[in-house]
Amino acid sequence: MSSFPKSVQELIDVLGQLPGIGPKTAERLALFLIRQPKAFVERFLRAVEQASRGFLLCSTCGNIAESSPCAICRDRQRDGTTVCVVAEPQDVAVIERSAEYRGRYHVLGGVLNPIEGVTPDQLRINELVGRIKHDGIKEVILATNPDLEGESTALYLARHLKPLGVKVTRLARGLPVGADIEYADDVTIQSAIRGRQEV
Amino acid sequence: MSSFPKSVQELIDVLGQLPGIGPKTAERLALFLIRQPKAFVERFLRAVEQASRGFLLCSTCGNIAESSPCAICRDRQRDGTTVCVVAEPQDVAVIERSAEYRGRYHVLGGVLNPIEGVTPDQLRINELVGRIKHDGIKEVILATNPDLEGESTALYLARHLKPLGVKVTRLARGLPVGADIEYADDVTIQSAIRGRQEV
Repeated sequence: MSSFPKSVQELIDVLGQLPGIGPKTAERLALFLIRQPKAFVERFLRAVEQASRGFLLCSTCGNIAESSPCAICRDRQRDGTTVCVVAEPQDVAVIERSAEYRGRYHVLGGVLNPIEGVTPDQLRINELVGRIKHDGIKEVILATNPDLEGESTALYLARHLKPLGVKVTRLARGLPVGADIEYADDVTIQSAIRGRQEV
Repeated sequence: MSSFPKSVQELIDVLGQLPGIGPKTAERLALFLIRQPKAFVERFLRAVEQASRGFLLCSTCGNIAESSPCAICRDRQRDGTTVCVVAEPQDVAVIERSAEYRGRYHVLGGVLNPIEGVTPDQLRINELVGRIKHDGIKEVILATNPDLEGESTALYLARHLKPLGVKVTRLARGLPVGADIEYADDVTIQSAIRGRQEV
């Protein structure tokens, strides 16, 4: 039996349904939340409400946006001939933060995963093909994760996009900045050697 | 610059203020939340609202409760001569789940921590002394964490409560069930040897 009031237990249960939040964390978050000043709880409620109402997916790139087409797709300063293909909106945020990339994006909405039943038709691949055919795209950068699903998605895309006459590239793999070679795994070392650059 | 809509960024910011939630986790939680079906978002909002309105602190034990005194303090089946002193309401929940303890509780609301400015007068120590003096308590079990702050809080309490004529005990320390002696730390091994039991 739970020693928490019913309403608090319900909050723990709901928080426990969020990804990566186990029962202990849910308990800690719930007890923190309810003991906050009223102003914080109200800001929290407002934020959840407005965020879940106030967003849509850009019809061009599929990213989470306030308007469609989104600010990035509308920005004429950006290079419209390059499109960076990512799995999720989070990935756009990370690449934008690096301030290295000035082209456009395409959010797939996931990666291929036969075991979990994610097939090509469930990702925004047709939309990507459409953009390549009609929007003057010259280079497609595949920026899915360097893991099993990310790699096979990139392979699948490369095979289907190259015949359209675009240059298809993949983010470089190698040692992350600040890494210790001693602790690097074999595949990363292999990638770092194969992709070595002249200095 | 954030590539998320303002309302989504605000939700990420608010989630990032919860304990143990870093910027990456906040991003993941926010993007999960807003893409859930409306019914889930509404259940989530209702849970936060009702939990933060629908609880109070038991005037006797200081635990989070629906009524005051709480269900545990009112329960006549429980042993009113033993009180288990814990730092936080979560600790009551954990001990209740073990179904080993049938006495009452006293929630301090924290532990002594001179560095963060938590002094004895900020914990519910006077209330504990009052209960010992007037409620016929015979044993006080100190169940603060076996870490620096928990230990010094227990020491402080032991020194102040023993003169009141109660038995003061501390939760046993030793190897946790399922542990591997090979990986146990020195202090735990020391505690396990000192606290060894005849079989």
